[in-house]
Amino acid sequence: IINLSSSFLQGILERLDAGEIVIGDGGFVIALEKRGYVKAGPWTPEATVEHPEAVRQLHREFLRAGSNVLQTFTFYASEDKLENRGNYVAEKISCQKLNEAACDIAREVANEGDALVAGGVSQTPSYLSCKDKAEVKAAFRKQLEVFMKKNVDFLIAEYFEHVEEAVWAVEVLKESGKPVAATMCIGPEGDMHGVSPGQCAVQLVKAGASIIGVNCHFDPDISLETVKLMKEGLQAAKLKAHLMSQPLAFHTPDCGKQGFIDLPEFPFGLEPRIATRWDIQKYARKAYDLGVRYIGGCCGFEPYHIRAIAEELAPERGFLPEASDKHGSWGNSLSMHTKPWVRARARKEYWENLKPASGRPYCPSMSKPDGWGVTKGAKELMQQKEPTSEQQLKELFQKQKI
Amino acid sequence: IINLSSSFLQGILERLDAGEIVIGDGGFVIALEKRGYVKAGPWTPEATVEHPEAVRQLHREFLRAGSNVLQTFTFYASEDKLENRGNYVAEKISCQKLNEAACDIAREVANEGDALVAGGVSQTPSYLSCKDKAEVKAAFRKQLEVFMKKNVDFLIAEYFEHVEEAVWAVEVLKESGKPVAATMCIGPEGDMHGVSPGQCAVQLVKAGASIIGVNCHFDPDISLETVKLMKEGLQAAKLKAHLMSQPLAFHTPDCGKQGFIDLPEFPFGLEPRIATRWDIQKYARKAYDLGVRYIGGCCGFEPYHIRAIAEELAPERGFLPEASDKHGSWGNSLSMHTKPWVRARARKEYWENLKPASGRPYCPSMSKPDGWGVTKGAKELMQQKEPTSEQQLKELFQKQKI
Amino acid sequence: IINLSSSFLQGILERLDAGEIVIGDGGFVIALEKRGYVKAGPWTPEATVEHPEAVRQLHREFLRAGSNVLQTFTFYASEDKLENRGNYVAEKISCQKLNEAACDIAREVANEGDALVAGGVSQTPSYLSCKDKAEVKAAFRKQLEVFMKKNVDFLIAEYFEHVEEAVWAVEVLKESGKPVAATMCIGPEGDMHGVSPGQCAVQLVKAGASIIGVNCHFDPDISLETVKLMKEGLQAAKLKAHLMSQPLAFHTPDCGKQGFIDLPEFPFGLEPRIATRWDIQKYARKAYDLGVRYIGGCCGFEPYHIRAIAEELAPERGFLPEASDKHGSWGNSLSMHTKPWVRARARKEYWENLKPASGRPYCPSMSKPDGWGVTKGAKELMQQKEPTSEQQLKELFQKQKI
Amino acid sequence: IINLSSSFLQGILERLDAGEIVIGDGGFVIALEKRGYVKAGPWTPEATVEHPEAVRQLHREFLRAGSNVLQTFTFYASEDKLENRGNYVAEKISCQKLNEAACDIAREVANEGDALVAGGVSQTPSYLSCKDKAEVKAAFRKQLEVFMKKNVDFLIAEYFEHVEEAVWAVEVLKESGKPVAATMCIGPEGDMHGVSPGQCAVQLVKAGASIIGVNCHFDPDISLETVKLMKEGLQAAKLKAHLMSQPLAFHTPDCGKQGFIDLPEFPFGLEPRIATRWDIQKYARKAYDLGVRYIGGCCGFEPYHIRAIAEELAPERGFLPEASDKHGSWGNSLSMHTKPWVRARARKEYWENLKPASGRPYCPSMSKPDGWGVTKGAKELMQQKEPTSEQQLKELFQKQKI
Repeated sequence: IINLSSSFLQGILERLDAGEIVIGDGGFVIALEKRGYVKAGPWTPEATVEHPEAVRQLHREFLRAGSNVLQTFTFYASEDKLENRGNYVAEKISCQKLNEAACDIAREVANEGDALVAGGVSQTPSYLSCKDKAEVKAAFRKQLEVFMKKNVDFLIAEYFEHVEEAVWAVEVLKESGKPVAATMCIGPEGDMHGVSPGQCAVQLVKAGASIIGVNCHFDPDISLETVKLMKEGLQAAKLKAHLMSQPLAFHTPDCGKQGFIDLPEFPFGLEPRIATRWDIQKYARKAYDLGVRYIGGCCGFEPYHIRAIAEELAPERGFLPEASDKHGSWGNSLSMHTKPWVRARARKEYWENLKPASGRPYCPSMSKPDGWGVTKGAKELMQQKEPTSEQQLKELFQKQKI
Repeated sequence: IINLSSSFLQGILERLDAGEIVIGDGGFVIALEKRGYVKAGPWTPEATVEHPEAVRQLHREFLRAGSNVLQTFTFYASEDKLENRGNYVAEKISCQKLNEAACDIAREVANEGDALVAGGVSQTPSYLSCKDKAEVKAAFRKQLEVFMKKNVDFLIAEYFEHVEEAVWAVEVLKESGKPVAATMCIGPEGDMHGVSPGQCAVQLVKAGASIIGVNCHFDPDISLETVKLMKEGLQAAKLKAHLMSQPLAFHTPDCGKQGFIDLPEFPFGLEPRIATRWDIQKYARKAYDLGVRYIGGCCGFEPYHIRAIAEELAPERGFLPEASDKHGSWGNSLSMHTKPWVRARARKEYWENLKPASGRPYCPSMSKPDGWGVTKGAKELMQQKEPTSEQQLKELFQKQKI
Repeated sequence: IINLSSSFLQGILERLDAGEIVIGDGGFVIALEKRGYVKAGPWTPEATVEHPEAVRQLHREFLRAGSNVLQTFTFYASEDKLENRGNYVAEKISCQKLNEAACDIAREVANEGDALVAGGVSQTPSYLSCKDKAEVKAAFRKQLEVFMKKNVDFLIAEYFEHVEEAVWAVEVLKESGKPVAATMCIGPEGDMHGVSPGQCAVQLVKAGASIIGVNCHFDPDISLETVKLMKEGLQAAKLKAHLMSQPLAFHTPDCGKQGFIDLPEFPFGLEPRIATRWDIQKYARKAYDLGVRYIGGCCGFEPYHIRAIAEELAPERGFLPEASDKHGSWGNSLSMHTKPWVRARARKEYWENLKPASGRPYCPSMSKPDGWGVTKGAKELMQQKEPTSEQQLKELFQKQKI
Repeated sequence: IINLSSSFLQGILERLDAGEIVIGDGGFVIALEKRGYVKAGPWTPEATVEHPEAVRQLHREFLRAGSNVLQTFTFYASEDKLENRGNYVAEKISCQKLNEAACDIAREVANEGDALVAGGVSQTPSYLSCKDKAEVKAAFRKQLEVFMKKNVDFLIAEYFEHVEEAVWAVEVLKESGKPVAATMCIGPEGDMHGVSPGQCAVQLVKAGASIIGVNCHFDPDISLETVKLMKEGLQAAKLKAHLMSQPLAFHTPDCGKQGFIDLPEFPFGLEPRIATRWDIQKYARKAYDLGVRYIGGCCGFEPYHIRAIAEELAPERGFLPEASDKHGSWGNSLSMHTKPWVRARARKEYWENLKPASGRPYCPSMSKPDGWGVTKGAKELMQQKEPTSEQQLKELFQKQKI
């Protein structure tokens, strides 16, 4: 089976302007942590230099699953972040070398298909600690220089908790002349300074972003609720932009304002929350119905989740991804299973209606987040505070802004 | 950090006889299905020829995580099975070629560390359909020829539901003169013909197996209960063998006699059941305390689960696996996280006591299995039958033995 | 122990104006259905004539538990309702006789303590079917005549889904010259015609109610959220009234606009949702903190729930109810238990932090309501619709207004 | 509707020998605790003297629900127990007076229908503290004297954790010449000294009991498993007796050897575990199929649970209980509900298949019991010990036998 997409060799905006669905890729830090190449805590991408084969393989799996965009694995790869966390890397790896390696690997794999390469920047420790605009912009510019040298296809500013910093990032990236997408890791309550999703969207578009939306921190349902608010904000301001969503593949109905970071299971006990491929098919349909056309995932999204997006939207797109050779939509490969009662599961109705059990009778369905705030949807369910020493840490944190 | 194991270049029996802990690898078919290289239903390993880089990468991740044995990816690679299922493979791949490729890849990666290569055979459609001993043995012998040609270090007969067929497999493998391990995919109620675990163990050892135990189909707790019954069976018969366990990384307290195959979530809705790394540390300790010294995993075991075994038993073994560079036992890498309340999770007590929520308030904790029988542990909880059309299929199946 | 309340013989408004806490009673129809005297479906109170001893005993239990008000058991006792449902009563009981018996029983028991008697009216089939103001008011007036003859202490219009009908009820009751309380069975989304809680409160106070709030349909948390909106509505309109809450003793975070009626468990499978006494102590505290001073319960509230209100607020009130002789706050009676580990539970911290298990591993924590709408708090959790034949019935119902 | 049972005025053994189903009553201490008349901890029945109207009303509700036997409310009414706990009773009530009052009330209500009165004795503090056979027997004899004076119809020795004491009780009761039933509060693992259910049954029958079985401590499923073991024990010993079961109306799949006492929810947080009427109908059918003909309940059984037994077995018995006038089997009274989608629930299939939600997303489905041992069924699920100070208390307790 050959990918017959008409989009071959076209740029991101040409594709979106033509009404095409663009499928993003999934989460690198969580997947590579489980594979043994990323350290939870610092979350930095030195694997691009230390173990390029592992990064290359994950890119390839997403490509086969249907991704039209491969993002360079440059998350938290700004110089200030690397310096902050770099002491644990066996040999010191320069910021430039790491970003270059990320670009090379992404391009190498993208060329195996028709995917675009997107260079990405994300929030910086500089912003949190000193808020000096020039210094923060310098950090972004340092990464941008690599992206320009390696000639990525477009740029993404992603994983920003404060719209102010995101706007600075977009302003830097726009200097390149390439298309810029911008996604924030916020929920319906807005950014950490209380700016609403609608207002965030307006500021990002005014700063120059052609594609805006959310990534990370919240599950697909909450993320799409946020994108909806962004869309309404743009409509009210009479602005236009393409919509993009790259949520978690974890169920987080019970999380607070900072999303899954606040959940007590983060990051080493999230397993029971992982979305099934069927959950993701529902997400893909819902995103499409909302008008989102750049549909991907973030932390928790494995290749089979991306394939689920591609399979759900195959009727609209006209083709299946390569990895569907090893699947069959809605479980139809099970018609070849040995046991007849498993063969009987090879049908859409079965999987669409399944309510999967956790096999953990001593575990509740919902957790109480550690964080300061909660989403409206969860408020009802979490009235009682449990004062902990973590709480005191947080209060200290809030006062000191560190 | 260098792996300082004293076992370098020693064989499997030398290691076990010396009292060493041998760490197995994890599950290939489930992991590679999610990565896009194996088709659920047929579950055959043509990826060794079609996409060797994906198989190689998974082996490598297990090696880095601490595996001392790399099993050739030859599950369901008997000729009769491949013929049965082969029609969907783009180009016909011969049984021999597939098995050879599997051996080459495993050896290549094993040489990157100090791992042994084990050639594996598993249950055959021939046995289920005709029960002709000569024909079934011929299928095993065909695979064995490849293993001898490629000179694997030892042999494993695994994933057998009927001890009779497992005994035949052991008899064939013993012809090679190499050490033989044998694991059955059974629970405490024994094999599909009602032979108890204790009796299974006795028959396997009498047939020539030096290492016996269980793999697949049940979660770590139930699997260790089965291994315990095997151990008691051997003691009663005054026989000796090394013990081995390679269970699921899914919680299955509610499954029936055929294990997770019977659960309604199998195979595409099992996500909420996936074990955390902390669950696996408990399993490793419990296995060790029971006297099991070959400790690995099967379906659902990802590299981070194998690393968890290696980290739990690091005090006994004296070293950590390579991938622990990217971890830190008991979550201590979190001490480098940005948020102070996440940093506060960098301690054993936190993760040891966490009861992870599923984030799925509409889903129960337990399912009703489709299968015919249930384990004693689950019987109490599933009194009411729900007659379904699947049930009728199963009855038909049981009568026809197909 | 003697009830030392200073309120002896004072009226409801004198008590509330003086800042006293008035404790209401609990639910009659659900409790008497379980005791065998009320039929679910019609829900009519013919037990006052058929089995007065059963009604008397329940009143007495609430009195002992701390109720300061005994409501006449006249729920759904309007003539039109009784005619509608009356065919199943063995001997035809006249509306007047039934209401008179209810008043006599309540007064008899109230005199055993210092409780007030309140006559109650609730929504009518006349309103739903024809909406003729005169006819609906006539139904209320018929009941009021009995209340005047029997000289109840004050009047309550309760369980109204439409504020229009509630206003008519208040207008009729005000003709008596007695104090009038009015509670609606609505949630934060307002009445069935979409009138907000704040607006409902304003209309009820303008119609003459001195005490306003909510009863039935929702759990304590949701109900207090509604009362809060009512309070804010009054403040915005610069109106004053006493606040009252009589919620369900069932947890209903997942219910729709019509509350627990829409839950699939209504009315015969609600058991796992029943509040513990500790849940109710939290409710009492929360209601008090919100400024509610008439605090009682509705369906599901048993005597031990009312006692929990009285015990929680004992520090503010200065006395315990009679039934606390058989309790001991926060479980301290357990200090006399035979087993030492049960004795160790005789402390506040234990019960305050308990998360009670359901013992039902196959049941989820949340249901999907049958109803048309959902509360904001639950929306997040119930995105997917499951079209059923019940749904079609409801749509029909909505169109036909029957 | 009149109860047309042919059994009018016949004794318990005549009824059972004729193959009739005898329906027992429900739990008094838990129900009256909630109504405000019994103190949890001491659990003594001084309400028979202090508040006879409350005891009378509960007897009456059980009678209306279908009970053929009213047990005197004499639980824990032995002299030694009352002395132990009596200090909290306002005025000292003599053991004799309390037992007499219990007999009078039960007889008064039994005469309103065709029920038998059974006098009951239960385990004593004397046995636990000193084990002197003569002294323990003297305590039972003191109660028996009252039962003879008041001429109860037959006698029940119930709620014994040690078969030795139960045998002593049966021996004393047999002195009366009246039929004796004996039930132990044990699970499938047997009594507290490790005597198996089968052996307990044999000893009780040999001591003179005509009816044997279990009461309290475990849910219906576990209790029937125990009764099955008792039945098998009698068959193996070629002895005959009628079978009786009076389990909890709480789900306890996760409890230990001492049953619900060990659950952390005992006794003030058990609400989410309460059985629905549909759960009890399943129990009644299962008990009948096992050959149990004396079918009742213990703690948690309210009148509607007893009615559920009577309704489930109405086809076999040929009549419905009086309280079914206010019910309608399988929810058919709902056909008179106002809302059409609730009317649609008036059918067997609906309630039979309902999996009721708890509305408590933060609570697990299963608890870890405090106790020393666990049932086999639960073992799988509770591997990890959580050492607590309660544990230490228990160890102390076990050593000191107090």
